[in-house]
Amino acid sequence: MVKAEGFALCALTVQYGQRHAREIESARAIARALGVERHLEIPIDLRAIGGSSLTSTADVPRGRDLASAEIPSTYVPARNTVFLSLALAWAEALEARDIVIGVNALDYSGYPDCRPAFIHAFESLAALATRAGVEGAKFRVHAPLIALTKSQIIRRGLELGLDYGLTHSCYDPSSDGRPCGTCDSCKLRARGFAEAGMADPLLLR
Amino acid sequence: MVKAEGFALCALTVQYGQRHAREIESARAIARALGVERHLEIPIDLRAIGGSSLTSTADVPRGRDLASAEIPSTYVPARNTVFLSLALAWAEALEARDIVIGVNALDYSGYPDCRPAFIHAFESLAALATRAGVEGAKFRVHAPLIALTKSQIIRRGLELGLDYGLTHSCYDPSSDGRPCGTCDSCKLRARGFAEAGMADPLLLR
Repeated sequence: MVKAEGFALCALTVQYGQRHAREIESARAIARALGVERHLEIPIDLRAIGGSSLTSTADVPRGRDLASAEIPSTYVPARNTVFLSLALAWAEALEARDIVIGVNALDYSGYPDCRPAFIHAFESLAALATRAGVEGAKFRVHAPLIALTKSQIIRRGLELGLDYGLTHSCYDPSSDGRPCGTCDSCKLRARGFAEAGMADPLLLR
Repeated sequence: MVKAEGFALCALTVQYGQRHAREIESARAIARALGVERHLEIPIDLRAIGGSSLTSTADVPRGRDLASAEIPSTYVPARNTVFLSLALAWAEALEARDIVIGVNALDYSGYPDCRPAFIHAFESLAALATRAGVEGAKFRVHAPLIALTKSQIIRRGLELGLDYGLTHSCYDPSSDGRPCGTCDSCKLRARGFAEAGMADPLLLR
């Protein structure tokens, strides 16, 4: 979406000890397909911090009611704050002013750091936290997916020519990378493809 | 200072590729001396992000006028945002609510992320960024040194029995760990000891 708006792209991937490290290969393939100028991968082991089933060997919730108000154990403490702080550091070093994050606050698991209030608070912080901000630069944190349903996201991606066969959503893939089909992330993805009336290319393999 | 207030202590050290990695040994020695419950060291290589003489082989400024309004090249993009985001993640996982950071906004190099406005903004962000915050927990970010002069900090440490021989300030120590004496950090430290009327034990060796 931001490429279509004319932005030059630098992609940041964080290897944080996620059990679905498979997504890092997808990030590389997508970065290549989009022709990004740079793709920076930063390792930071959040398993040492703990507090999440995504960074431990605890099982992830399966077949959960997606309408539940409970925040599931796949929540990773302050993860998007860590991600955005690294993105802000890199943006400042690159003299970029626009940071883009793919969070969604509609078809999601209720994670607090996917909501508009969090994004706005981080944007305010960025102005105070950086030399560039103090010198008058205005950092913007874009979250173009935040208010779209999963099916709207899928349709928009297809319009833009994205190959969903390159993507990965599952929290707990098999050793050959196949989605489990029962975690929150698989269920949200399946519902999105169903509502969009499309087949998921990952399931056609 | 927070130990004297009765807090149990968990210490976080970030190995971020700083040229003065010598400070990590000091952090270990001080954590041991204080009897912290846990000392977590997290490696995250900010050299990949760049934008600072502290994370590169560029020389650090020497003999700088400390009254200058310019933010020097030793500023590391968004460093304290990265540090506090990791501290917030660990605090949430530990079910701790109090985060303490040793920034100072009086005898310092003008870094934006050492100022009260930044600390307050991060505290507001913490409430929005975390599951604990959404569930009503109140994270506090304490910066007990922020409004003290360097000489007041030194006197307070001595009152509390701190051995300044364990500490490290220099941005560019020699290979055997001796301070250079000319970087901002050495100059601020020397001025602090002089104003406190004390000798710096690091210089007596």
